[in-house]
Amino acid sequence: MKERIIKSALNLFWRYGIKSVTMDDIAKDLGISKRTIYQHYSDKEAILALVIQNEIMDQKCEMEKLDEKAANPIEQMMYASAQMRDTLSNMNPALLYDLKKYYPTAWEQFETYKHEFLLKSIRENLVTGIEQGLYRPDIDVDVLALLRIEQIVMAFDPTIFPQKKFSMMHTQMQFLLHFLRGVLSEKGFEYYNTIKDRSAIEINTHEK
Amino acid sequence: MKERIIKSALNLFWRYGIKSVTMDDIAKDLGISKRTIYQHYSDKEAILALVIQNEIMDQKCEMEKLDEKAANPIEQMMYASAQMRDTLSNMNPALLYDLKKYYPTAWEQFETYKHEFLLKSIRENLVTGIEQGLYRPDIDVDVLALLRIEQIVMAFDPTIFPQKKFSMMHTQMQFLLHFLRGVLSEKGFEYYNTIKDRSAIEINTHEK
Repeated sequence: MKERIIKSALNLFWRYGIKSVTMDDIAKDLGISKRTIYQHYSDKEAILALVIQNEIMDQKCEMEKLDEKAANPIEQMMYASAQMRDTLSNMNPALLYDLKKYYPTAWEQFETYKHEFLLKSIRENLVTGIEQGLYRPDIDVDVLALLRIEQIVMAFDPTIFPQKKFSMMHTQMQFLLHFLRGVLSEKGFEYYNTIKDRSAIEINTHEK
Repeated sequence: MKERIIKSALNLFWRYGIKSVTMDDIAKDLGISKRTIYQHYSDKEAILALVIQNEIMDQKCEMEKLDEKAANPIEQMMYASAQMRDTLSNMNPALLYDLKKYYPTAWEQFETYKHEFLLKSIRENLVTGIEQGLYRPDIDVDVLALLRIEQIVMAFDPTIFPQKKFSMMHTQMQFLLHFLRGVLSEKGFEYYNTIKDRSAIEINTHEK
C-alpha cells in the first residue's frame, strides 16, 4: 500500500502540480479511505518527500545508463537532455514552481540533488569534453556547469517563460543546442555536424 | 542640491549596496544635515527611485552610442558587454540583490527597463545577426533573448555565484563568449575568429 500511495501521488503531482492535489484526491485516485493513507503517512509533505526521493533515484539510474550508452561527451549531453525532456514531457510546469514556493523542505532535497549529482555530472561532462578536444579549453567548467543547471530550471519559471507563450520542451531544446554549440571546439563542431541530423530526429520524436 | 544628493547616493549604493546605506551616511558624505536631505526627498526609497531612473537613462544613452560604433551584431554584443562590465566593475554585487529583496518598487523599475529596453535591444541584435547570416537561422530569438538577460542577472545572484568563489566580471565574460558562440553560424564563426583576439585585448583591459 505504501508504494501504491507514492505512485498515485507522483502521478497526480506530475499532472496537476503539488499545491492543488489534496489527500482526498490521492485517496479517491486509489479508491481507498483517507484514513488508510494517514496510517502510512502523517501528511502530504511526508508523501512528497518520498516521491521526490524515488524520482531522484530513478533519474540517477537513468543517467548512469545513458553515460554507458554515449560514445562521447557530446552524445552524452544530447542523450541526457532527450531523457530529461522525455521525463518532463507530461509534467505540469507548476510542479517545480510549487516546490520552490510552498515546500521548502522538498525544494531543499531537489537543490541537494541539483548540486551534488547534476552539477557533478555536468562538470564531468565538460572536463571530459575538454580532454577529448571536443570542447574549448578556455571554458570555465564551474561557471558553465552552474549556468547549464540554472538554464534547465529557468525554463520552468512561469515568471520568465509563461506557459501560454512558450512550450517548455521547445525552450529546453533551444537551451541545449545553444549551450552545446557554445562549448564546442572546432574539432567538436566537425563531429557535431556529423551527428546533429541523426540526433535531431531522435530528439524531435520527444519534442511536443 | 537635489542632484548632489542623487550623485552621492548613487556612489554610496554602488559601493556598499542599498540596505546598509542610511540617510545619515548620505548626509555625512555631502557634509550637510539630514534635515537638508529631507527637504528634498521624503525617504531613501524616493532617492533610490531617482538614482535608478538616472542610471537607466545613462545606460540607454551609452547603448545607443555603442550601436552606432559597432559594425555588426557580433561587435555590438561584445561592445555592449564590455560597457556593462565597465559600468559594473566597481559595483557591489549586493546592490542588485538588495533591490530585488528589499525594494520591490525600485526592482519593478529595473524589471521594466530589462523587459522594455534591454530585451528589445538583444532581440534586435539577434534578428539582425540572422538577417546578416552571422547567427544561425534556427535560433528562437524570443527564447534566447530572455536567456541572455537572465544570464546577466544570474551572475549577480550570490546564492548561485558566491562572491568568495566567483569574480562577477569573469562570470559575465564566460557567459558572453559562451552565448555568442552558441548563436554564431559558420559564417559568423569565420568573422568572429578574425576579431576575437582584438576584442580579447579590449575586453581584458576591463576585466578585473
